[in-house]
Amino acid sequence: MAASSSLTVSHALVSRAIVGGSSSSSSTTTTTTSHVALPGFVRSSIAGQSLRSSASARPSRRRDGPRRGSMRAMAAVETLEGKAETTALLEKSVNTIRFLAIDAVEKANSGHPGLPMGCAPMGHILYDEVMRYNPKNPFWFNRDRFVLSAGHGCMLQYALLHLAGYDSVKEEDLKNFRQWGSKTPGHPENFETIGIEVTTGPLGQGIANAVGLALAEKHLAARFNKPDNEIVDHYTYVILGDGCNMEGISNEACSLAGHWGLGKLIAFYDDNHISIDGDTEIAFTENVDARFEALGWHTIWVKNGNTGYDEIRAAIKEAKAVTDKPTMIKVTTTIGYGSPNKSNSYAVHGSALGAKEVEATRQNLAWPHEPFHVPEDVKSHWSRHTPEGAALEAEWNAKFAEYEKKYPAEAAELKGLSTGEFPTGWEKALPTYTPESPGDATRNLSQQCLNALAKVLPGLLGGSADLASSNMTLLKMFGDFQKSTPEERNIRFGVREHGMGAICNGIALHSPGLLPYCATFFVFTDYMRAAIRISALCEAGVIYVMTHDSIGLGEDGPTHQPIEHLASFRAMPNILMLRPGDGNETAGAYKVAVLNRKRPSILALSRQKLPQLPGTSIEGVEKGGYIISDSDGKPEVILIGTGSELEIAAKAGDELRKEGKKVRVVSFVSWELFDEQSDEYKESVLPSDVTARVSVEAGSTFGWEKIIGSKGKAIGIDRFGASAPAGKIYKELGMTVENVVASAKALLG
Amino acid sequence: MAASSSLTVSHALVSRAIVGGSSSSSSTTTTTTSHVALPGFVRSSIAGQSLRSSASARPSRRRDGPRRGSMRAMAAVETLEGKAETTALLEKSVNTIRFLAIDAVEKANSGHPGLPMGCAPMGHILYDEVMRYNPKNPFWFNRDRFVLSAGHGCMLQYALLHLAGYDSVKEEDLKNFRQWGSKTPGHPENFETIGIEVTTGPLGQGIANAVGLALAEKHLAARFNKPDNEIVDHYTYVILGDGCNMEGISNEACSLAGHWGLGKLIAFYDDNHISIDGDTEIAFTENVDARFEALGWHTIWVKNGNTGYDEIRAAIKEAKAVTDKPTMIKVTTTIGYGSPNKSNSYAVHGSALGAKEVEATRQNLAWPHEPFHVPEDVKSHWSRHTPEGAALEAEWNAKFAEYEKKYPAEAAELKGLSTGEFPTGWEKALPTYTPESPGDATRNLSQQCLNALAKVLPGLLGGSADLASSNMTLLKMFGDFQKSTPEERNIRFGVREHGMGAICNGIALHSPGLLPYCATFFVFTDYMRAAIRISALCEAGVIYVMTHDSIGLGEDGPTHQPIEHLASFRAMPNILMLRPGDGNETAGAYKVAVLNRKRPSILALSRQKLPQLPGTSIEGVEKGGYIISDSDGKPEVILIGTGSELEIAAKAGDELRKEGKKVRVVSFVSWELFDEQSDEYKESVLPSDVTARVSVEAGSTFGWEKIIGSKGKAIGIDRFGASAPAGKIYKELGMTVENVVASAKALLG
Repeated sequence: MAASSSLTVSHALVSRAIVGGSSSSSSTTTTTTSHVALPGFVRSSIAGQSLRSSASARPSRRRDGPRRGSMRAMAAVETLEGKAETTALLEKSVNTIRFLAIDAVEKANSGHPGLPMGCAPMGHILYDEVMRYNPKNPFWFNRDRFVLSAGHGCMLQYALLHLAGYDSVKEEDLKNFRQWGSKTPGHPENFETIGIEVTTGPLGQGIANAVGLALAEKHLAARFNKPDNEIVDHYTYVILGDGCNMEGISNEACSLAGHWGLGKLIAFYDDNHISIDGDTEIAFTENVDARFEALGWHTIWVKNGNTGYDEIRAAIKEAKAVTDKPTMIKVTTTIGYGSPNKSNSYAVHGSALGAKEVEATRQNLAWPHEPFHVPEDVKSHWSRHTPEGAALEAEWNAKFAEYEKKYPAEAAELKGLSTGEFPTGWEKALPTYTPESPGDATRNLSQQCLNALAKVLPGLLGGSADLASSNMTLLKMFGDFQKSTPEERNIRFGVREHGMGAICNGIALHSPGLLPYCATFFVFTDYMRAAIRISALCEAGVIYVMTHDSIGLGEDGPTHQPIEHLASFRAMPNILMLRPGDGNETAGAYKVAVLNRKRPSILALSRQKLPQLPGTSIEGVEKGGYIISDSDGKPEVILIGTGSELEIAAKAGDELRKEGKKVRVVSFVSWELFDEQSDEYKESVLPSDVTARVSVEAGSTFGWEKIIGSKGKAIGIDRFGASAPAGKIYKELGMTVENVVASAKALLG
Repeated sequence: MAASSSLTVSHALVSRAIVGGSSSSSSTTTTTTSHVALPGFVRSSIAGQSLRSSASARPSRRRDGPRRGSMRAMAAVETLEGKAETTALLEKSVNTIRFLAIDAVEKANSGHPGLPMGCAPMGHILYDEVMRYNPKNPFWFNRDRFVLSAGHGCMLQYALLHLAGYDSVKEEDLKNFRQWGSKTPGHPENFETIGIEVTTGPLGQGIANAVGLALAEKHLAARFNKPDNEIVDHYTYVILGDGCNMEGISNEACSLAGHWGLGKLIAFYDDNHISIDGDTEIAFTENVDARFEALGWHTIWVKNGNTGYDEIRAAIKEAKAVTDKPTMIKVTTTIGYGSPNKSNSYAVHGSALGAKEVEATRQNLAWPHEPFHVPEDVKSHWSRHTPEGAALEAEWNAKFAEYEKKYPAEAAELKGLSTGEFPTGWEKALPTYTPESPGDATRNLSQQCLNALAKVLPGLLGGSADLASSNMTLLKMFGDFQKSTPEERNIRFGVREHGMGAICNGIALHSPGLLPYCATFFVFTDYMRAAIRISALCEAGVIYVMTHDSIGLGEDGPTHQPIEHLASFRAMPNILMLRPGDGNETAGAYKVAVLNRKRPSILALSRQKLPQLPGTSIEGVEKGGYIISDSDGKPEVILIGTGSELEIAAKAGDELRKEGKKVRVVSFVSWELFDEQSDEYKESVLPSDVTARVSVEAGSTFGWEKIIGSKGKAIGIDRFGASAPAGKIYKELGMTVENVVASAKALLG
């Protein structure tokens, strides 16, 4: 995108966050919008002030354009009669949400009506009164983010997106809820439905994603905001339920949110006392508010979440006033509110109400309408969000134009972060090595890459789960991202792997140019696997820096030694499992990881020192598997190694060649990348008529038959490791040059 | 073991918990021991009362035998001089622990000296003054359990076991710390070192195991104790660190511990303010005490954990007095206490001190001794634990003999639970089915098995992570295990998968006859994978009931649909991945799971209804893979299915036979079990010259080349699933009879 770009509204998933707008085009839009008369509810009954405007309490963020509509609405309720009228419309609108959810679940005969029925009031206030977004450009950079951590209640969000005017959720989409190919899947999926920020459903992930979104905002605000222009300024809202609050991941992420003082993170805890197994009394009697306070959060209790609109509004206002802490608003609701026979029971959590109960609920809530009906006055009420959203964006674009004029360098960088366009030639920063370069552990070589990339990739930030000095992940040119230094890029996650992964998903999905990486020992991917799987599913290009990747870590023993982990990730869709063997391959792995913005990468790295091998290359890594050394003519035997065992394969090749054998040595860094090569290329590396193949990898042999064929030999470890010096374990478990040589000879007969 | 068993001391891992002791033999032992003069520290400076005796505050548990030694020790300190002498010996003993740790780490040049140096005082008080155990029978049923959740500090525990007289940790073993084949691996491993209860190291697992151990005690006490004989009565002690407290799993497990009111769980939080990345201020500023209080725990703060022996004692006394809540004692310590230049820094956490600093520490703590030296007075002091432990066990055996006389049925059951011996013929309770039996989802068939087994296996208990009604795991004959009904067997874990798995590990390792099962959706094994891996490593035969095992769950979509999970567990050592296809196979899977007490089992079960297939059998399942239908003569093609796709394979077989093809259909329930069969058997099922093989499984094809060979065809799903009705997804993703038939024909040419 050129520096003097015009206002661009893009719905394409490939470039989802747009910073842009020259002052001329955007001011035109602003002017247009400010003349539109916008009907609106009272935006806040508390202080005669729009809640949305309270988002911008600081003088620099006051604006007049879109406010006018709100002010008119305000005027309308200054009489008692007007207020009653407005409340009636509000309740009608809230019931519209409830019935869209009821009807969609009923039509699908599958889904979760209980949450949308209970959370419709808070959802309504958020999308209609509080949040700043542009439904016609859901990727507007400075939008408020919303996360439904209790993802099973997705019909709430679909109904809200539909009413708010998002083109992604039309009436037809609501009618196709949970059907093949629809835009309204069974849980919120950012890659399916534009307007959904992250993928939720597995409980606790969403609140942790939200911590990542809020972290990204705080970080970017600290880097880019100027005293005269706070160009980054938005909130992250979450709705989470009892289930999310029981999951350990939420405690991890929320502990960090408190530590970091993420004041613009506002979470609504849907306190409905019901989970799938019944009353939460049977398993969840802790004091949630007190726990959150202990985690450094501000807490508020809304006692009537079913009809207490003013209570909800007041809570949001209070939450915004607390700028140095995240806020948890406990909203006590009735699950399935409105259903006379099923509300307040697990029966309404995860099943359609059934025709009879739907009818009873229609009676009870005085809802005479056909399924999927949106009353005209409700429709008309919500229709203002299209012009208002455009105005918000235009206003921001104007602000950005001013920013760009005054701070061109920062503006260019922010634009890059928001579009995902990297500085040209960034990959030249990657180090390369020759066989004469000193040998080193790939975890150290990884640190060289990270530090080289930090200089050229403004979006690179991340850290480790309390193993920075072991994972070698510190960016030396930066300090720690902390409450008082949020502009820095080394994130200290503490011993919270699961939260770390999900927070990185949030960072990655905040802006396409943000490149979060995170680190722990490879074996502890087990702690964060649910978050890693979501990275893969939701197309978040997180870089997982996983060191101590085998028995090669030595004395810490089998609890710390990964065995099955390589195989377990090779089996996972849409993720790159990379195991580089030296410096060039580590650099190659980083190149691949950075380029794959819609697919996460896991780098398995050694604790132990490895030599720089002849024949390795960045280009080779990009093909997944490639020849690092060969004999003249057709090989008799192919030796295949990965990571730290590539050295063993190479040495075994040398040995065998000394004995006159024709040997090819292949590095197999990434099975996924190799799979994507042409058949010709694959055949050129692994000719089908060379069936004598030996693989060597310090991990489970599971899956290697695919590469070595039924006549090959896989040398690996199909047991747990042991506590001893690394060299000893390698020898005892047969991970040796001798074993590879002997196996090759046995195959050659 | 016969009913009138004599006192048996067993060190064999295979039968580790022994309930026994006739009144005659045990009383003899008691008498002998009570005459031994035991030197001892003052056991409690607080109230002139042994802390160990305060464990038995209830009148029924007072005893005189082993107390006498303590009383003599008490008498010895009634003068000021005596007290000073005792304190000097205590400090000497504590420094012995510190230097055993320092020296072992130094010799190995690997390990974690910091924690043992800081936690030696609390460790000393626990093993020397508080805990009830018999070092010569570490499996004595009623022993107190100790868990070092901060497992990296294992040299603390090895030093304590050594001093206390456990034969498993001799001086030689300390000198072989972290070496190949030693009994002192880099983290505590119950399967390597007798006296270690559970396997820790991965942070947070230990505290959750401890919750399981304490649950088991509370459950068994409620089931077996009588007003006149509290035969089950012991404590669970834990030391956990900052890392454990940051991990989400600990919050999950501790929330449950609070909910269940596990009053005999006492956790020491080593509050040393240092983690690997430095001061905990950088990532961990929450109020831990307040969080634990919110979770329903009693909390105490020992401000001087380095030398405040009396403070520690008082805290334990207070903790024991609170019987309706678990207690968290925050003990503020200095990591690496005694090291003049490295204490209170991360430098002392995970590396040897180095010769120079070891020397400086020796100077600083006035420790003139050679490495690994245990001063004679310290040795002599600790030596009393051998007779005292024997006496404790003998006394308990006598109590058990009384119990057995009065309550023979309960005694027999408790004996079975403690030895792991199941009632004979239990497996006859398993249901069997014919093809005429009504079809059903394997999750429902699983419920039939669980409920059948509950009648015959007194150790079966478990539950689900808030999905009991979906996983179908309720035992109908029992109520809920709750604070006030701990005798019941349905455990309500809430949405806490990770904590659930680790708690089940604790239950399984408490007594070999306890058979814990736990449940969630198969995809959410991702949340608990670290705990499942520990089950496999530590030989805890937990039964994982994992339902909704494929895209067959339908509309919930890809966040809920497992794809790579079967492969990921097939690659894991020492675990059985079972995917039964109908009723007989589900029963077979349960038979296998129950019999495998040192290997966990995962049962992948369908949400959707499946037919009862001809040819399936319990015996077949026990072989892992077997023929369910065949044509006459040698087959032309072999169709292989698992779980819900076995039906597809069977139907495709029928189709192909109609067309005159010779088809064998093989069920492949468990790869691990098939691997263990003889070559002859394997060849009989999959003859090597029948290379036309088609596998069908609704999951990743990763690994199937091993079974189908390079000429076979694997039908599976190598992408994420989708949200739609199950039948539709099956069809769209090619999981159909037609596809299997076509693939088979393609192979036959």
